[in-house]
Amino acid sequence: MTKASRAVREKRFQAGVITAASRIVPEEVPIAFSYGGSTHAVMMGTPQDLEDFALGFSLAEGIITSAADVLSVEPVEAGAGIDVQVTLQDDSAEALVARRRRMAGPVGCGLCGIESIEQATRQVPQVTVPGFSVTPEHIHEAMRALGRAQSLNRETHAVHGAGFFIPGEGLLAIREDVGRHNALDKLVGAVLRAGRKGDEGMVVVTSRLSVEMVQKAAILGAPVLAAISAPTALAIETAEAAGMTLIGIARGEDFEIFTRPDRVTGGDEADVA
Amino acid sequence: MTKASRAVREKRFQAGVITAASRIVPEEVPIAFSYGGSTHAVMMGTPQDLEDFALGFSLAEGIITSAADVLSVEPVEAGAGIDVQVTLQDDSAEALVARRRRMAGPVGCGLCGIESIEQATRQVPQVTVPGFSVTPEHIHEAMRALGRAQSLNRETHAVHGAGFFIPGEGLLAIREDVGRHNALDKLVGAVLRAGRKGDEGMVVVTSRLSVEMVQKAAILGAPVLAAISAPTALAIETAEAAGMTLIGIARGEDFEIFTRPDRVTGGDEADVA
Repeated sequence: MTKASRAVREKRFQAGVITAASRIVPEEVPIAFSYGGSTHAVMMGTPQDLEDFALGFSLAEGIITSAADVLSVEPVEAGAGIDVQVTLQDDSAEALVARRRRMAGPVGCGLCGIESIEQATRQVPQVTVPGFSVTPEHIHEAMRALGRAQSLNRETHAVHGAGFFIPGEGLLAIREDVGRHNALDKLVGAVLRAGRKGDEGMVVVTSRLSVEMVQKAAILGAPVLAAISAPTALAIETAEAAGMTLIGIARGEDFEIFTRPDRVTGGDEADVA
Repeated sequence: MTKASRAVREKRFQAGVITAASRIVPEEVPIAFSYGGSTHAVMMGTPQDLEDFALGFSLAEGIITSAADVLSVEPVEAGAGIDVQVTLQDDSAEALVARRRRMAGPVGCGLCGIESIEQATRQVPQVTVPGFSVTPEHIHEAMRALGRAQSLNRETHAVHGAGFFIPGEGLLAIREDVGRHNALDKLVGAVLRAGRKGDEGMVVVTSRLSVEMVQKAAILGAPVLAAISAPTALAIETAEAAGMTLIGIARGEDFEIFTRPDRVTGGDEADVA
C-alpha cells in the first residue's frame, strides 16, 4: 500500500539564490468506499488509517450507527487509488446503500436545487452531555498535545490533524490527512474502534471550522469542538442548534468561545454582557 | 442575497480572563448549480461572485469550453441556500449535463471503485506556452498583491484567496471563498469574463496545492501556479504531466519550485544538481 509521504527533488529560491534541494510532501490518492461491491463515494486523501476512515465516513454518511455494524474493511489497490471495500453485518444494508446512492448522491441529486440544498444542511443530533465541562487548561493541553502528535505534519507541514481529548486522561487518538474532513472522519473511526464514546471528550482540530466539521463532531456526539482557526457563520449556527460548545482561534493559552460557553469553567469572568 | 460575512457575539478568553467580544465570520451556504432545471452539484461556499463561480465551475467540470457557451447565470435564493441557474447556449448541452449527472456523478458513480478512481484522476491538458516566464520579483509581487487584495480575509481571517497575475500588468483579478477550490473556480470565471486567457499569466493561491488545484489551473491554461503552502505528491505529478511550473511555500521573497523550473528566470543559480 502507498506510504503517507515521499521525498521530492525541488529547486529552492532563498535570499536571491536558486539551489537544488528536497522536501517531504504528503501523498494524495483517490480513496473509494464500496459497500457490497458498489462504490458510494471517492475522496482525495492520505492513504493511512483507512480502516478508521471507513468507519468514520460510514457513520457520518448515516450508513452505520456503531462500529458493530461493520463486519470487515479491506483496502484494495485499484488503479491509481485505493478501493476500501466495506462489508456490513447486514447484507440488505449494503443493497440499501447502493440503491440510495443511485437515487440521490450526497453532492447533487439531479433533481431540484432545493432538495439538494436541504440535503447539504441536514439536521444534526443534539450533544447534550449533562455535567461535561472543560477548563481553559484542558483546551491548552489538548491543542499542545495535538501539535506534538502530528507526526506526518511535522515531516510535510501540509496536512491537517484531528484529535480526541478526554479530560483527566489526555489525547486518546489523533489522525492526519491532507483533507480536514478526512482527518476528522479518521478520528471518529479511531474513537469508535477504541470502544470509546464521543460524549467522553472534546474534538480538537488544526483547521478552520466549516459546517461539515460541526456535523461530523455532532454525529460522534462530542459536546465540545475546538480549532486553531475560525468558524464560519453556518458552523456557529449548526453548533448552536446541536447544543455543542464551539471554540475557535485556540492559540497559546487563549481561545474564543462561539456557542455554549457554560461548558468552559474555571476562567475568571469579567465584563460579560 | 446573503452577504459574505457577518458579526457574531462571542466570549474571548485572553490572558486568563473571559470577556464578551465580537468577531466577523465568513458566511458559508449551500450553493447548487443547475443546468436546464436539473441540479448538477451542491457545494458549501461563500455567497459572492456567483456568476464567476458558475463559469469557473462549468469549465472545470467540462460542461463548457468558453464563456460564450453560457447564455445566462441567475442565482436564486432556494431554502437555506442559493440555486445558481445556468442556461447554456445550446439546449441539448443542458440535457446532456443532466443525463451525464444521472449516469455517473463526479464523486462516486455507483459502479466499481476503479471507474470512480479513474474519474478522480482524469487527464489534464498541456499548458505549453512558448516563451512565458516569470522572475522571482514577479512571484514576490504577485503574492504581495494577493495578500493586499483579500478584503474578506482581512475581515475574517478565515477564507482562501486566488489571484491571476499578468507579468508587467499586475493582478488582473482576485476572488475569495471559505473553500479553496471555490476561490479558484471563481477566479477562473473572472478571468474568462474579463475576456483574458489563462496562458497570459500566473495563478497565485493562499492555500496548499492539492491535485484539484493543479487540474483547475491547467484547464484555465495557466503555465505557472504558485501557492503560499506546500503541494501534495499527486499535485506535483499532475503539474509535471501538464507541463506546468508548480511553485510552493512562496513566503516573503523566497519560494520553492517543484516542476518546470525553466519558466523562472533571473535568479542566480548555484549548486544545481
